[in-house]
Amino acid sequence: MPQVIRPTDDQARALAQSLLAEARYCALAVTDPETGTPYVARVALGLAPDRAPVSLISDLAHHTRALRANANCALLVGEPGPKGDPLTHPRLTVQARASFVLREGAEHAALTTYYLQSHPKSQLYIGFTDFGFVRFTPIAAHLNGGFGKAFRLTPQDLAVPVT
Amino acid sequence: MPQVIRPTDDQARALAQSLLAEARYCALAVTDPETGTPYVARVALGLAPDRAPVSLISDLAHHTRALRANANCALLVGEPGPKGDPLTHPRLTVQARASFVLREGAEHAALTTYYLQSHPKSQLYIGFTDFGFVRFTPIAAHLNGGFGKAFRLTPQDLAVPVT
Repeated sequence: MPQVIRPTDDQARALAQSLLAEARYCALAVTDPETGTPYVARVALGLAPDRAPVSLISDLAHHTRALRANANCALLVGEPGPKGDPLTHPRLTVQARASFVLREGAEHAALTTYYLQSHPKSQLYIGFTDFGFVRFTPIAAHLNGGFGKAFRLTPQDLAVPVT
Repeated sequence: MPQVIRPTDDQARALAQSLLAEARYCALAVTDPETGTPYVARVALGLAPDRAPVSLISDLAHHTRALRANANCALLVGEPGPKGDPLTHPRLTVQARASFVLREGAEHAALTTYYLQSHPKSQLYIGFTDFGFVRFTPIAAHLNGGFGKAFRLTPQDLAVPVT
């Protein structure tokens, strides 16, 4: 079961893209601004119209303060189902930089309409003044398709159309 | 829905302890040794006989190399079920330091027997020479019991018996 990195192919790209497209939440890893050490939280996850990963987060959350202090972060998507070995379930780690979307701008309004299609329950708090969107710009990605199926992907691998 | 930190009580301690005890895997946040930025992976998770969180990981994995370079890490446990809003599901972030268990020692043998009771499928690879146990010593924990139910816990909160 060595984690040898396989050459990236369209099958790997398609799997990574589908894991991102299907995700409704993720584990978000950040640097704790209080300690400088790793911190991880569950946050909502969706895609922007340009397919960039986005989240809707509260200014009051610890992970939001962390991202404002240091934009480097990582997302884990690909949730195991209730059956089978969870460690054989495919998952994708995306290393990214976070950028906050201004609540007053046109981008916020467009994202709100788009995001509510995939996250209708967010209607409950999307208008709260402490909630806002953050965009994640991928820098690199690691795909684990199960034991022995490891790939390193580029931002282009996550973005290019795959048949 | 402000993330005001509530005073820790036995209900919060019991919830945190049950999230850890029930976890069979977690999101593990580490510092990427190649970039110095956050990285997150899914790994197996269990408890040692002394109730410390432990994982069985491969020396070949990227997160293992990360932990060998920097033992500071964080675990996220508490998986949403298939129904309901995943962001209202309770989850626990444990900030910890990792320490590797020597494969040749008595602790490894004892952990192997104990761990296989909760992770029987690990029998397939627990004997592989690149697999070994890592123990996580909690430093601090954040419990999110759903919107507006945030607690900061100490290692003692995770360890003390709660009725």
